[in-house]
Amino acid sequence: MTKKIAVLPGDGIGPEIVAEALKVLDCLKQDFGLEIETEQALIGGAAYDVKGTPLPEETLALAKAADSVLLGAVGGPKWEPLDYSVRPERGLLGIRAELELFANLRPAILYPQLVAASTLKPEVVSGLDIMIIRELTGGIYFGRPRGRRINENGEREGFNTLIYNESEIRRIAHVAFQIAQKRNRKLCSVDKANVLECTELWREIVVEVGCEYPDVELSHMYVDNASMQLVRAPKQFDVMLTDNMFGDILSDCAAMLTGSIGMLPSASLDKNGKGMYEPIHGSAPDIAGRSIANPIATVLSLAMLLRYSFGDAGSADRIEKAVITALDAGYRTADIYSEGMTKVGTAEMGDAIVSAL
Amino acid sequence: MTKKIAVLPGDGIGPEIVAEALKVLDCLKQDFGLEIETEQALIGGAAYDVKGTPLPEETLALAKAADSVLLGAVGGPKWEPLDYSVRPERGLLGIRAELELFANLRPAILYPQLVAASTLKPEVVSGLDIMIIRELTGGIYFGRPRGRRINENGEREGFNTLIYNESEIRRIAHVAFQIAQKRNRKLCSVDKANVLECTELWREIVVEVGCEYPDVELSHMYVDNASMQLVRAPKQFDVMLTDNMFGDILSDCAAMLTGSIGMLPSASLDKNGKGMYEPIHGSAPDIAGRSIANPIATVLSLAMLLRYSFGDAGSADRIEKAVITALDAGYRTADIYSEGMTKVGTAEMGDAIVSAL
Ligand SMILES: CC(C)[C@H](C(=O)O)[C@@H](O)C(=O)O
Ligand SMILES: CC(C)[C@H](C(=O)O)[C@@H](O)C(=O)O
Repeated sequence: MTKKIAVLPGDGIGPEIVAEALKVLDCLKQDFGLEIETEQALIGGAAYDVKGTPLPEETLALAKAADSVLLGAVGGPKWEPLDYSVRPERGLLGIRAELELFANLRPAILYPQLVAASTLKPEVVSGLDIMIIRELTGGIYFGRPRGRRINENGEREGFNTLIYNESEIRRIAHVAFQIAQKRNRKLCSVDKANVLECTELWREIVVEVGCEYPDVELSHMYVDNASMQLVRAPKQFDVMLTDNMFGDILSDCAAMLTGSIGMLPSASLDKNGKGMYEPIHGSAPDIAGRSIANPIATVLSLAMLLRYSFGDAGSADRIEKAVITALDAGYRTADIYSEGMTKVGTAEMGDAIVSAL
Repeated sequence: MTKKIAVLPGDGIGPEIVAEALKVLDCLKQDFGLEIETEQALIGGAAYDVKGTPLPEETLALAKAADSVLLGAVGGPKWEPLDYSVRPERGLLGIRAELELFANLRPAILYPQLVAASTLKPEVVSGLDIMIIRELTGGIYFGRPRGRRINENGEREGFNTLIYNESEIRRIAHVAFQIAQKRNRKLCSVDKANVLECTELWREIVVEVGCEYPDVELSHMYVDNASMQLVRAPKQFDVMLTDNMFGDILSDCAAMLTGSIGMLPSASLDKNGKGMYEPIHGSAPDIAGRSIANPIATVLSLAMLLRYSFGDAGSADRIEKAVITALDAGYRTADIYSEGMTKVGTAEMGDAIVSAL
């Protein structure tokens, strides 16, 4: 049966990089008979400009009806003067919440071809392969009460609520333990249990869930130490489990260890494995429209989509191998360029991957 | 007039490293006539064990009466089973709050002698000199309501409140701008204004305060991007301004860039410049009692104390130069050891610094 992908290019470099992923998908459809249809819709600033909201009803309806979602990126300085409630980011947060995509999988893998692109010394990072599992629909991102008010002294005051309940922590912990079981059976849960009661509960529940996975070695780390250890000795980590806010910070740090935020895909899954897939990087407004963005993170997001949501490991493998072939052939977009390589633009990188499929 | 330092060694390696700083102070008193007296008191787990509380009244009274405070470190696994309200960390948070030490200055400096100890490539970090200004008595660390409860579904729930008002943001922003003025007039304020209303206010107020410092170039960065940029190109930063939680995470990451969390001092100041000084690193229970801890961060914290709270730049310079002389002579504790250097223990490093004074 034909499956459907809702394609949401978004803002900045979003449309450029999504176009390359679709080229890859088209090739797979033509040459390998994949039965997949795509339909595009607006999200983020692009949606606000046309519809006055970053998450129009028809976009949400399409995403809900589709079997899975491929997203580019949202946001940019153009929309920063807007009120908080209609900023592009609200589109992204809104779709995460509406689709209940609570499990965000963020791999940080250093491709051997890119060791030179990392700012860390080769002996510290080569072979790096971390999977960060970030809780995505709870915590301080969504907690209430939140907002701004005038306090009793007549001053402006801003407030947000970090909040998690048992079942929210439990379900993301299960995801993390199950992924750890398929990898090296080592899970490090990150919290700030020495200061924040909310994350004290986090630790408690993770320990409880851990009893069901005696084959996984569970450890705990305070978030400040984790951000330090990521720089000191990142290879000590295999799977990391974090809340929404800490995951936002640590996954960007981990991604950068690989020298290439432009390389890394991500998956955001609901409890049935339906998911939204997007590059870890943002909309990069500074380079938008210049055809120099790296499409690999988005192409690999498509691979993750096929693997996790459509159970098509064959096609996912094929894409991942094609990316490696393109890297082996020396093709590099500007963000991952190092001496002696062939510098290419967005579309040329897409072409190189397609011809390696 | 004789000035008084309250000395709070704390837990783990705290007593060992503080002892070395006091050796340095004694030498300065004897050889250069500094009129300073010290008095020790318990804090953290050490205080809990004797007094049943991590911040005994007499410790607080001493700290309040003294002209400034030198602290080692608190915490350790021994006290982790304890209830949150009496853990060693509460002693540290309590004294910060009671003394209203809202401005935490955390330099991340890479000593040229230690380039080899950094996990980052020399071209990325050599010459690194960042000053992180962290708000220390507000935000989610202290916000109320906080705690745990059973929700309407009968589930456990944990919650904390991130909250800042105008004057809290204003006073830390002034500190940051004034420090930026004395450095390279570049200030980067870190927030998550695209998601959290509280940090949206943070950004707004920082912009307002910035109008009073037209000579300082102000920029803003989302916290996830900041953690990435610290790894990608840390030398782009000069002074960074953060809230309490983000500062906790980013300052540890920045410290590690220098290859040596054992090297970095910090100052926590109140509005009159009275302060508490402590190494950035923790109590390192794994190496406590083994006489291998690096005392330099604590020795440099004493230097900061003399400079900022006692206005004695001469003695501060003398200490800082002595540390450099010891490094130039090749002395290295285990944490900063690299091939060809002379590995020394805690007391030997202290002696090397004293003899270079
Ligand atoms: C754009 C922003 C709302 C988002 C987040 O903070 O979650 C982004 O940084 C991410 O990590 O996906
Ligand atoms: C020990 C802990 C409470 C403390 C903090 O989180 O502030 C420490 O990590 C620090 O950075 O000084």
